Amino acid sequence: MQNKTTSSDPIRHLVSLMANLPGIGEKSATRITFALLDHGKDYAYTLSDGIRQLVDRVIFCSNCWNLTQEDPCHICGDPKRDHSIVCVVENVPDLLAIERTMEFKGVYHVLHGALAPLDGITPDKLRIEELLIRLRKNDIQEVILATNPTVEGDSTALYLHKRLEEFSVRVTRIASGVPMGGDLEYIDKATLSRALLGRREL
Amino acid sequence: MQNKTTSSDPIRHLVSLMANLPGIGEKSATRITFALLDHGKDYAYTLSDGIRQLVDRVIFCSNCWNLTQEDPCHICGDPKRDHSIVCVVENVPDLLAIERTMEFKGVYHVLHGALAPLDGITPDKLRIEELLIRLRKNDIQEVILATNPTVEGDSTALYLHKRLEEFSVRVTRIASGVPMGGDLEYIDKATLSRALLGRREL
Repeated sequence: MQNKTTSSDPIRHLVSLMANLPGIGEKSATRITFALLDHGKDYAYTLSDGIRQLVDRVIFCSNCWNLTQEDPCHICGDPKRDHSIVCVVENVPDLLAIERTMEFKGVYHVLHGALAPLDGITPDKLRIEELLIRLRKNDIQEVILATNPTVEGDSTALYLHKRLEEFSVRVTRIASGVPMGGDLEYIDKATLSRALLGRREL
Repeated sequence: MQNKTTSSDPIRHLVSLMANLPGIGEKSATRITFALLDHGKDYAYTLSDGIRQLVDRVIFCSNCWNLTQEDPCHICGDPKRDHSIVCVVENVPDLLAIERTMEFKGVYHVLHGALAPLDGITPDKLRIEELLIRLRKNDIQEVILATNPTVEGDSTALYLHKRLEEFSVRVTRIASGVPMGGDLEYIDKATLSRALLGRREL
Protein backbone atom coordinates (compact mmCIF):
# COMPACT_ATOMS: atom_id res chain seq x y z
CA MET A 1 0.00 0.00 0.00
CA GLN A 2 2.88 2.32 0.82
CA ASN A 3 4.03 1.76 -2.72
CA LYS A 4 0.69 2.24 -4.38
CA THR A 5 -0.08 5.49 -2.62
CA THR A 6 3.37 7.06 -2.62
CA SER A 7 3.49 10.40 -4.41
CA SER A 8 7.09 10.08 -5.46
CA ASP A 9 7.19 7.34 -8.07
CA PRO A 10 8.00 9.39 -11.24
CA ILE A 11 10.10 11.63 -9.02
CA ARG A 12 12.17 8.76 -7.63
CA HIS A 13 12.42 7.20 -11.08
CA LEU A 14 13.92 10.37 -12.56
CA VAL A 15 16.17 10.95 -9.55
CA SER A 16 17.70 7.49 -9.87
CA LEU A 17 18.09 7.91 -13.64
CA MET A 18 19.79 11.29 -13.27
CA ALA A 19 22.10 10.03 -10.54
CA ASN A 20 23.83 7.96 -13.29
CA LEU A 21 25.06 11.11 -15.03
CA PRO A 22 28.61 12.29 -14.37
CA GLY A 23 28.99 14.76 -11.51
CA ILE A 24 25.38 14.28 -10.37
CA GLY A 25 24.75 12.50 -7.09
CA GLU A 26 21.40 11.74 -5.52
CA LYS A 27 21.19 15.17 -3.87
CA SER A 28 21.71 17.15 -7.09
CA ALA A 29 19.41 14.74 -8.96
CA THR A 30 16.66 15.46 -6.43
CA ARG A 31 17.26 19.19 -6.66
CA ILE A 32 17.12 19.08 -10.47
CA THR A 33 13.96 16.96 -10.47
CA PHE A 34 12.11 19.41 -8.23
CA ALA A 35 13.45 22.29 -10.31
CA LEU A 36 11.94 20.63 -13.40
CA LEU A 37 8.56 20.55 -11.67
CA ASP A 38 9.01 24.22 -10.74
CA HIS A 39 10.12 25.37 -14.21
CA GLY A 40 6.85 24.16 -15.71
CA LYS A 41 5.92 21.70 -18.44
CA ASP A 42 7.25 23.64 -21.43
CA TYR A 43 10.82 23.59 -20.24
CA ALA A 44 10.60 19.91 -19.29
CA TYR A 45 9.17 18.98 -22.72
CA THR A 46 11.91 20.94 -24.48
CA LEU A 47 14.56 19.24 -22.38
CA SER A 48 13.01 15.82 -23.00
CA ASP A 49 12.95 16.47 -26.77
CA GLY A 50 16.49 17.88 -26.67
CA ILE A 51 17.82 14.66 -25.19
CA ARG A 52 15.99 12.53 -27.76
CA GLN A 53 17.16 14.71 -30.66
CA LEU A 54 20.71 14.57 -29.40
CA VAL A 55 20.97 10.80 -29.67
CA ASP A 56 18.81 10.63 -32.80
CA ARG A 57 20.61 13.27 -34.84
CA VAL A 58 24.22 13.07 -33.68
CA ILE A 59 26.29 10.38 -35.41
CA PHE A 60 29.97 9.57 -35.72
CA CYS A 61 32.07 10.84 -38.62
CA SER A 62 33.18 7.64 -40.38
CA ASN A 63 36.57 9.20 -41.09
CA CYS A 64 37.71 10.79 -37.82
CA TRP A 65 35.00 9.59 -35.33
CA ASN A 66 34.12 13.13 -34.33
CA LEU A 67 30.45 13.62 -33.41
CA THR A 68 28.51 15.15 -36.27
CA GLN A 69 25.13 15.49 -37.92
CA GLU A 70 26.52 14.75 -41.36
CA ASP A 71 29.14 12.28 -42.51
CA PRO A 72 31.93 13.29 -43.07
CA CYS A 73 32.00 15.94 -40.33
CA HIS A 74 32.53 19.62 -41.12
CA ILE A 75 36.25 19.32 -40.33
CA CYS A 76 36.94 16.27 -42.53
CA GLY A 77 34.77 17.81 -45.25
CA ASP A 78 36.63 21.12 -45.24
CA PRO A 79 39.03 21.36 -48.22
CA LYS A 80 40.80 24.33 -46.60
CA ARG A 81 42.18 22.16 -43.79
CA ASP A 82 45.45 20.29 -44.05
CA HIS A 83 44.47 16.63 -44.39
CA SER A 84 48.08 15.48 -44.14
CA ILE A 85 48.31 16.32 -40.41
CA VAL A 86 46.16 14.24 -38.07
CA CYS A 87 45.78 15.20 -34.43
CA VAL A 88 44.80 12.20 -32.28
CA VAL A 89 42.65 13.05 -29.24
CA GLU A 90 40.96 10.97 -26.58
CA ASN A 91 37.48 12.42 -26.99
CA VAL A 92 35.32 15.10 -28.59
CA PRO A 93 35.60 17.70 -25.78
CA ASP A 94 39.39 17.53 -26.25
CA LEU A 95 38.91 18.13 -29.98
CA LEU A 96 36.68 21.12 -29.24
CA ALA A 97 39.29 22.50 -26.81
CA ILE A 98 41.94 22.37 -29.55
CA GLU A 99 39.53 23.93 -32.06
CA ARG A 100 38.99 26.82 -29.64
CA THR A 101 42.71 27.68 -29.80
CA MET A 102 42.24 28.29 -33.58
CA GLU A 103 45.90 27.25 -33.93
CA PHE A 104 45.41 23.88 -35.58
CA LYS A 105 44.55 23.69 -39.26
CA GLY A 106 44.89 19.92 -39.73
CA VAL A 107 42.30 17.22 -39.11
CA TYR A 108 41.54 14.96 -36.15
CA HIS A 109 41.14 11.37 -35.09
CA VAL A 110 39.03 10.72 -31.99
CA LEU A 111 39.97 7.55 -30.11
CA HIS A 112 36.94 7.67 -27.77
CA GLY A 113 38.96 6.86 -24.68
CA ALA A 114 42.45 6.07 -23.47
CA LEU A 115 44.06 2.75 -22.70
CA ALA A 116 43.24 1.46 -19.21
CA PRO A 117 43.59 -2.33 -19.32
CA LEU A 118 42.59 -2.69 -15.64
CA ASP A 119 39.24 -1.06 -16.46
CA GLY A 120 38.88 -3.26 -19.53
CA ILE A 121 39.82 -0.53 -22.00
CA THR A 122 42.16 -2.45 -24.28
CA PRO A 123 43.36 -1.23 -27.72
CA ASP A 124 40.43 -2.92 -29.51
CA LYS A 125 37.99 -0.74 -27.51
CA LEU A 126 39.47 2.42 -29.05
CA ARG A 127 39.35 3.66 -32.65
CA ILE A 128 42.98 2.65 -33.23
CA GLU A 129 42.43 0.22 -36.11
CA GLU A 130 40.49 3.00 -37.87
CA LEU A 131 43.48 5.33 -37.49
CA LEU A 132 45.82 2.75 -39.05
CA ILE A 133 43.40 2.29 -41.95
CA ARG A 134 43.40 6.06 -42.52
CA LEU A 135 47.20 6.04 -42.60
CA ARG A 136 47.24 3.21 -45.11
CA LYS A 137 44.71 4.85 -47.41
CA ASN A 138 45.75 8.50 -47.28
CA ASP A 139 48.90 10.53 -47.68
CA ILE A 140 49.44 11.56 -44.06
CA GLN A 141 52.69 13.33 -43.15
CA GLU A 142 52.34 13.86 -39.42
CA VAL A 143 50.40 12.35 -36.54
CA ILE A 144 50.21 14.55 -33.43
CA LEU A 145 49.47 12.51 -30.32
CA ALA A 146 47.33 14.86 -28.23
CA THR A 147 46.12 12.40 -25.61
CA ASN A 148 46.11 13.81 -22.06
CA PRO A 149 49.35 13.91 -20.03
CA THR A 150 47.98 11.30 -17.61
CA VAL A 151 49.02 7.69 -17.02
CA GLU A 152 46.33 6.49 -19.43
CA GLY A 153 46.94 9.19 -22.03
CA ASP A 154 50.69 8.69 -21.91
CA SER A 155 50.47 4.93 -22.32
CA THR A 156 48.00 5.39 -25.18
CA ALA A 157 50.51 7.73 -26.88
CA LEU A 158 53.30 5.24 -26.27
CA TYR A 159 51.22 2.39 -27.67
CA LEU A 160 50.23 4.41 -30.75
CA HIS A 161 53.85 5.45 -31.29
CA LYS A 162 54.78 1.77 -31.51
CA ARG A 163 51.89 0.91 -33.82
CA LEU A 164 52.81 3.81 -36.11
CA GLU A 165 56.39 2.64 -36.61
CA GLU A 166 55.41 0.70 -39.74
CA PHE A 167 54.38 3.94 -41.46
CA SER A 168 56.78 6.55 -42.80
CA VAL A 169 55.01 9.27 -40.85
CA ARG A 170 56.28 11.90 -38.43
CA VAL A 171 54.87 11.14 -34.97
CA THR A 172 54.84 13.99 -32.42
CA ARG A 173 53.49 14.44 -28.90
CA ILE A 174 52.01 17.70 -27.58
CA ALA A 175 54.24 19.52 -25.08
CA SER A 176 53.58 19.05 -21.39
CA GLY A 177 54.85 21.45 -18.73
CA VAL A 178 54.05 24.44 -16.54
CA PRO A 179 50.79 25.99 -17.77
CA MET A 180 50.77 29.63 -18.90
CA GLY A 181 50.36 31.91 -15.90
CA GLY A 182 51.34 29.07 -13.57
CA ASP A 183 53.59 29.64 -10.57
CA LEU A 184 56.46 27.14 -10.17
CA GLU A 185 56.01 27.24 -6.40
CA TYR A 186 52.55 25.75 -6.66
CA ILE A 187 53.01 23.36 -9.58
CA ASP A 188 53.00 19.64 -8.76
CA LYS A 189 56.27 17.69 -8.95
CA ALA A 190 55.25 15.59 -11.96
CA THR A 191 54.42 18.64 -14.07
CA LEU A 192 57.63 20.36 -13.07
CA SER A 193 59.76 17.31 -13.97
CA ARG A 194 58.01 17.17 -17.34
CA ALA A 195 58.72 20.86 -17.88
CA LEU A 196 62.41 20.30 -17.13
CA LEU A 197 62.66 17.20 -19.30
CA GLY A 198 60.92 19.00 -22.15
CA ARG A 199 63.15 22.09 -22.00
CA ARG A 200 64.05 23.68 -25.36
CA GLU A 201 66.84 25.93 -26.68
CA LEU A 202 65.91 29.60 -26.79
CA MET B 1 27.67 28.16 -43.80
CA GLN B 2 29.47 27.75 -40.49
CA ASN B 3 26.04 27.28 -38.97
CA LYS B 4 24.79 24.83 -41.54
CA THR B 5 27.80 22.59 -41.35
CA THR B 6 28.51 22.75 -37.62
CA SER B 7 28.42 19.34 -35.96
CA SER B 8 27.35 20.62 -32.60
CA ASP B 9 23.83 21.96 -33.04
CA PRO B 10 21.82 19.40 -31.00
CA ILE B 11 24.80 19.24 -28.65
CA ARG B 12 24.88 22.99 -28.05
CA HIS B 13 21.10 23.10 -27.81
CA LEU B 14 21.07 20.53 -25.01
CA VAL B 15 24.07 22.09 -23.27
CA SER B 16 22.36 25.48 -23.10
CA LEU B 17 19.10 23.88 -21.92
CA MET B 18 20.84 21.90 -19.19
CA ALA B 19 22.81 24.93 -18.04
CA ASN B 20 19.48 26.32 -16.76
CA LEU B 21 19.18 23.57 -14.17
CA PRO B 22 20.28 24.30 -10.61
CA GLY B 23 23.90 23.44 -9.82
CA ILE B 24 24.73 22.80 -13.49
CA GLY B 25 26.99 25.24 -15.30
CA GLU B 26 28.09 25.08 -18.91
CA LYS B 27 30.99 22.75 -18.12
CA SER B 28 28.89 20.13 -16.35
CA ALA B 29 26.18 20.49 -19.01
CA THR B 30 28.78 19.71 -21.70
CA ARG B 31 30.09 16.76 -19.71
CA ILE B 32 26.58 15.38 -19.22
CA THR B 33 25.68 15.84 -22.90
CA PHE B 34 28.72 13.88 -24.05
CA ALA B 35 28.02 11.25 -21.41
CA LEU B 36 24.51 10.86 -22.87
CA LEU B 37 26.05 10.19 -26.28
CA ASP B 38 28.40 7.66 -24.66
CA HIS B 39 25.72 5.88 -22.61
CA GLY B 40 23.84 4.97 -25.79
CA LYS B 41 20.32 5.60 -27.07
CA ASP B 42 18.41 3.41 -24.61
CA TYR B 43 19.49 5.38 -21.59
CA ALA B 44 18.83 8.70 -23.32
CA TYR B 45 15.33 7.60 -24.37
CA THR B 46 14.54 6.44 -20.84
CA LEU B 47 15.76 9.74 -19.42
CA SER B 48 13.79 11.71 -22.01
CA ASP B 49 10.62 9.74 -21.16
CA GLY B 50 11.31 10.07 -17.43
CA ILE B 51 11.34 13.85 -17.68
CA ARG B 52 8.11 13.88 -19.70
CA GLN B 53 6.37 11.48 -17.31
CA LEU B 54 7.49 13.53 -14.35
CA VAL B 55 5.69 16.68 -15.47
CA ASP B 56 2.75 14.76 -16.96
CA ARG B 57 2.00 12.55 -13.97
CA VAL B 58 2.99 14.64 -10.98
CA ILE B 59 0.31 17.10 -9.85
CA PHE B 60 -0.28 19.23 -6.76
CA CYS B 61 -2.43 18.03 -3.89
CA SER B 62 -5.33 20.51 -3.84
CA ASN B 63 -5.36 20.41 -0.05
CA CYS B 64 -1.71 20.75 1.05
CA TRP B 65 0.08 21.50 -2.29
CA ASN B 66 2.41 18.54 -1.88
CA LEU B 67 3.46 16.90 -5.15
CA THR B 68 1.47 13.77 -5.84
CA GLN B 69 0.10 11.46 -8.49
CA GLU B 70 -3.37 11.40 -6.94
CA ASP B 71 -5.41 14.17 -5.34
CA PRO B 72 -5.56 14.31 -2.32
CA CYS B 73 -1.98 13.14 -1.70
CA HIS B 74 -1.23 10.03 0.35
CA ILE B 75 -0.62 12.13 3.47
CA CYS B 76 -3.86 14.16 3.27
CA GLY B 77 -5.75 10.98 2.37
CA ASP B 78 -4.42 9.02 5.34
CA PRO B 79 -7.08 8.77 8.11
CA LYS B 80 -4.41 7.64 10.59
CA ARG B 81 -2.69 11.03 10.51
CA ASP B 82 -3.69 13.90 12.79
CA HIS B 83 -5.44 16.39 10.53
CA SER B 84 -5.68 18.97 13.32
CA ILE B 85 -1.93 19.69 13.23
CA VAL B 86 -0.59 21.37 10.08
CA CYS B 87 3.13 21.73 9.50
CA VAL B 88 3.92 24.58 7.09
CA VAL B 89 7.05 24.05 4.96
CA GLU B 90 8.67 26.02 2.16
CA ASN B 91 8.87 23.19 -0.35
CA VAL B 92 8.48 19.48 -0.99
CA PRO B 93 12.09 18.45 -0.21
CA ASP B 94 11.56 20.03 3.26
CA LEU B 95 8.38 17.97 3.66
CA LEU B 96 10.26 14.82 2.69
CA ALA B 97 13.03 15.67 5.19
CA ILE B 98 10.45 15.90 8.00
CA GLU B 99 8.76 12.68 6.83
CA ARG B 100 12.12 10.90 7.06
CA THR B 101 12.32 11.71 10.80
CA MET B 102 9.09 9.65 11.24
CA GLU B 103 8.36 11.93 14.22
CA PHE B 104 5.51 13.92 12.73
CA LYS B 105 2.05 12.40 12.51
CA GLY B 106 0.14 15.52 11.42
CA VAL B 107 -0.37 16.89 7.92
CA TYR B 108 1.47 19.52 5.86
CA HIS B 109 1.02 22.70 3.92
CA VAL B 110 3.59 23.46 1.22
CA LEU B 111 4.08 27.18 0.52
CA HIS B 112 6.28 26.63 -2.57
CA GLY B 113 8.78 29.27 -1.56
CA ALA B 114 9.57 31.83 1.09
CA LEU B 115 8.96 35.58 1.12
CA ALA B 116 11.66 37.52 -0.72
CA PRO B 117 10.06 40.80 -1.85
CA LEU B 118 13.28 41.99 -3.51
CA ASP B 119 13.17 38.91 -5.77
CA GLY B 120 9.48 39.49 -6.44
CA ILE B 121 8.30 36.74 -4.10
CA THR B 122 5.45 38.51 -2.36
CA PRO B 123 2.77 36.76 -0.21
CA ASP B 124 0.46 36.28 -3.21
CA LYS B 125 3.17 34.15 -4.91
CA LEU B 126 3.02 31.59 -2.09
CA ARG B 127 0.20 29.22 -1.11
CA ILE B 128 -0.74 31.40 1.87
CA GLU B 129 -4.36 32.14 0.92
CA GLU B 130 -4.86 28.38 0.53
CA LEU B 131 -3.60 27.85 4.08
CA LEU B 132 -6.05 30.42 5.47
CA ILE B 133 -8.90 28.74 3.58
CA ARG B 134 -7.93 25.41 5.15
CA LEU B 135 -7.98 27.00 8.59
CA ARG B 136 -11.44 28.47 7.97
CA LYS B 137 -12.89 25.21 6.68
CA ASN B 138 -11.33 22.65 9.02
CA ASP B 139 -10.89 22.16 12.73
CA ILE B 140 -7.16 22.84 13.01
CA GLN B 141 -5.62 23.07 16.48
CA GLU B 142 -1.98 23.82 15.75
CA VAL B 143 0.06 25.29 12.92
CA ILE B 144 3.79 24.49 13.10
CA LEU B 145 5.84 27.00 11.11
CA ALA B 146 8.69 24.89 9.73
CA THR B 147 10.13 27.36 7.24
CA ASN B 148 13.93 27.46 7.19
CA PRO B 149 15.81 29.48 9.83
CA THR B 150 17.01 31.94 7.16
CA VAL B 151 16.15 35.58 6.60
CA GLU B 152 13.45 34.58 4.10
CA GLY B 153 12.14 31.66 6.14
CA ASP B 154 12.02 33.73 9.33
CA SER B 155 10.18 36.61 7.72
CA THR B 156 7.73 34.15 6.15
CA ALA B 157 7.10 32.64 9.60
CA LEU B 158 6.67 36.13 11.07
CA TYR B 159 4.26 37.11 8.31
CA LEU B 160 2.24 33.90 8.72
CA HIS B 161 2.13 34.37 12.49
CA LYS B 162 0.49 37.75 11.93
CA ARG B 163 -1.99 36.41 9.37
CA LEU B 164 -2.94 33.56 11.72
CA GLU B 165 -3.86 35.88 14.61
CA GLU B 166 -7.50 35.95 13.49
CA PHE B 167 -7.80 32.20 14.10
CA SER B 168 -7.99 30.55 17.53
CA VAL B 169 -5.12 28.25 16.64
CA ARG B 170 -1.86 27.49 18.42
CA VAL B 171 1.02 28.75 16.25
CA THR B 172 4.48 27.29 16.91
CA ARG B 173 7.90 27.60 15.27
CA ILE B 174 10.40 24.74 14.99
CA ALA B 175 13.41 25.09 17.32
CA SER B 176 16.60 26.53 15.93
CA GLY B 177 20.00 26.05 17.56
CA VAL B 178 23.16 24.00 17.63
CA PRO B 179 22.67 20.87 15.47
CA MET B 180 23.08 17.44 17.08
CA GLY B 181 26.74 16.45 17.09
CA GLY B 182 27.72 20.05 16.47
CA ASP B 183 30.69 21.63 18.24
CA LEU B 184 30.07 25.07 19.81
CA GLU B 185 33.57 26.13 18.83
CA TYR B 186 32.76 25.84 15.15
CA ILE B 187 29.14 26.98 15.13
CA ASP B 188 28.42 30.37 13.55
CA LYS B 189 27.46 33.30 15.80
CA ALA B 190 23.89 33.56 14.55
CA THR B 191 23.13 29.89 15.32
CA LEU B 192 24.74 30.17 18.74
CA SER B 193 22.71 33.30 19.63
CA ARG B 194 19.57 31.46 18.56
CA ALA B 195 20.52 28.48 20.70
CA LEU B 196 21.00 30.78 23.72
CA LEU B 197 17.75 32.69 23.12
CA GLY B 198 15.88 29.43 22.71
CA ARG B 199 17.24 27.85 25.91
CA ARG B 200 14.80 25.73 27.90
CA GLU B 201 14.46 24.56 31.54
CA LEU B 202 15.84 21.09 32.14
